[in-house]
Amino acid sequence: MLVNCKNYKTVWMSGSSVFLIEQNLLPFEFKIYEAKTYLQTCLAIENMIVRGAGAIGATAGYAMAQAAIEAPDKNYTQFIENARKRIENTRPTAQNLFYGISRVYNAALISKEAAIIEAERVAIEDIRACQQIGIYGNELIKPNMKIGTHCNAGWLAFVDYGTAISPIYLAHKLGKNPFVYVDETRPRGQGARLTAWELKNEKVSHKIIPDNATAYFMSKGMIDMIIVGADRIAANGDVANKIGTLEKAICAKEFNIPFYVAAPSSTFDINCKTGTDIIIEERSQNEVLYQSGIDEHGKLHNILVCSPLSEASNPAFDVTPAKYITGIITEKGILKSISI
Amino acid sequence: MLVNCKNYKTVWMSGSSVFLIEQNLLPFEFKIYEAKTYLQTCLAIENMIVRGAGAIGATAGYAMAQAAIEAPDKNYTQFIENARKRIENTRPTAQNLFYGISRVYNAALISKEAAIIEAERVAIEDIRACQQIGIYGNELIKPNMKIGTHCNAGWLAFVDYGTAISPIYLAHKLGKNPFVYVDETRPRGQGARLTAWELKNEKVSHKIIPDNATAYFMSKGMIDMIIVGADRIAANGDVANKIGTLEKAICAKEFNIPFYVAAPSSTFDINCKTGTDIIIEERSQNEVLYQSGIDEHGKLHNILVCSPLSEASNPAFDVTPAKYITGIITEKGILKSISI
Repeated sequence: MLVNCKNYKTVWMSGSSVFLIEQNLLPFEFKIYEAKTYLQTCLAIENMIVRGAGAIGATAGYAMAQAAIEAPDKNYTQFIENARKRIENTRPTAQNLFYGISRVYNAALISKEAAIIEAERVAIEDIRACQQIGIYGNELIKPNMKIGTHCNAGWLAFVDYGTAISPIYLAHKLGKNPFVYVDETRPRGQGARLTAWELKNEKVSHKIIPDNATAYFMSKGMIDMIIVGADRIAANGDVANKIGTLEKAICAKEFNIPFYVAAPSSTFDINCKTGTDIIIEERSQNEVLYQSGIDEHGKLHNILVCSPLSEASNPAFDVTPAKYITGIITEKGILKSISI
Repeated sequence: MLVNCKNYKTVWMSGSSVFLIEQNLLPFEFKIYEAKTYLQTCLAIENMIVRGAGAIGATAGYAMAQAAIEAPDKNYTQFIENARKRIENTRPTAQNLFYGISRVYNAALISKEAAIIEAERVAIEDIRACQQIGIYGNELIKPNMKIGTHCNAGWLAFVDYGTAISPIYLAHKLGKNPFVYVDETRPRGQGARLTAWELKNEKVSHKIIPDNATAYFMSKGMIDMIIVGADRIAANGDVANKIGTLEKAICAKEFNIPFYVAAPSSTFDINCKTGTDIIIEERSQNEVLYQSGIDEHGKLHNILVCSPLSEASNPAFDVTPAKYITGIITEKGILKSISI
């Protein structure tokens, strides 16, 4: 998608290097990071230069391809086996990581070239799935619709296009003039920082709103639809996503506003029967207590924004029961009602 | 209430000076401001050294008493008449301001002494009402209850005790061991900054949570009750309060959690038939885009925390329809069901 009127993906490979948008510098600085070796790509994943399910999966695949390129003829199999373990350890909780790695690993056992081709395929499939989600989701969007979203399920979380925002990008391209209410998404502010940045670059009309304000705008009839992403979908259709998703879903139901989840079908975890089986990660309280940003000179600061001495609780995700969800937009179509 | 183990009120008069807790320095610095003249007290109200309905009302009353003290014998009536206008102009949207001023103004027409006594009475009545709200509200609190609150309706918004937090302080004093989930309350963070600071000083167990997380904690059965304050209550029981209150109320209803509003009966506006008559103030987008706090050296910064170039919307209040409210705790008792 567009950054300063130029097209980018979050990650791509050229020669033996992997190139990544340095996402931890966003939205204040736009920079491309070049990882010349698979170990440098591992560090990029660990240091969150890349983030989001799809983007991490593709990056891990590229890292595996780099390892195949770097592997000496003599200890080839041993080298890629060790590399596999190293890459797997970068973000062991990211589901897509293992998928990308294992596909490219199997190809690498055949040849270096097969590994490169397979890594490219993993990335392209992510792009295609997101595009297809855009096509299905776009059908739900009427002209001049006002759409709410939460967190960042845009192209920065994938290789391109994104999930929740992909239908909005297509609708915008088709001249439907969608307007987006971007939830700030405390504590880490992915909405205010990443989704808003994406939309601005694509010239999609939007406004950042405090997480607190969604119900207010709903009560005023100013939100026609909600689309969010998903971190994991249980077999019964319960959805784990960024903290606050449940709250938006409950309010949407109260005001009879359609609430859609957009995610590639790989997000379904059939081993997970219901949302209650999903364990919620409790992250550092410092994400709530401190906030980073830039001063008037562009200098970055990390400041305490809460009362000193008080503690905070920081659950990273919540589970939205299927009953609040109007439909799940996947690359295979829209699932309107789900049964086990 | 306690600050560093010493008892304070938000505002008091001694001799011809008015003393105020400098609330715009909280929670990072605790300082008392001395206003030696009524004009200095006016500046204190304008600069938000004092904030909150009850505290502003009492401060305006004290300012009027100061004006009576300062008034020359010759032009006494003219002086206090001018002073009245000056004080009324400090925060013309604050309802309690006019109440405090007109009572003390009428007393000042009799004598300087009557003005001082009346100003003291206004402040004491605010304290008594908050104490009484605490007594009624405490009856709702069972031992070890976990209570959610939003924004700051503690003693810092009144002369002492507060409204929503007053029952919690009493329950704590009685050994009921309440635990408070303090909503951060973006954009201005009154929960994370003021309510948390109050509770810490009174040694009440609490944790700050992102506004996004309330429904999650409710869904886990970790919140037993919600108590919030009110800015204005319509004749039909609809409540205008800090943005986000509506969202909490809807979620509370969904999880069958009692949702109480605590406010002095003066908060009722019988001229306002329903909540739809209440106009919501849209405040500066900079409150959303920027955030202030201190760095590791204690230095204050105001930093941009959102994507540059994007705009924000910042409605300051929302209206919670009466159907979501379990009861309204006033100094006269708890109103469980309201009809026009």
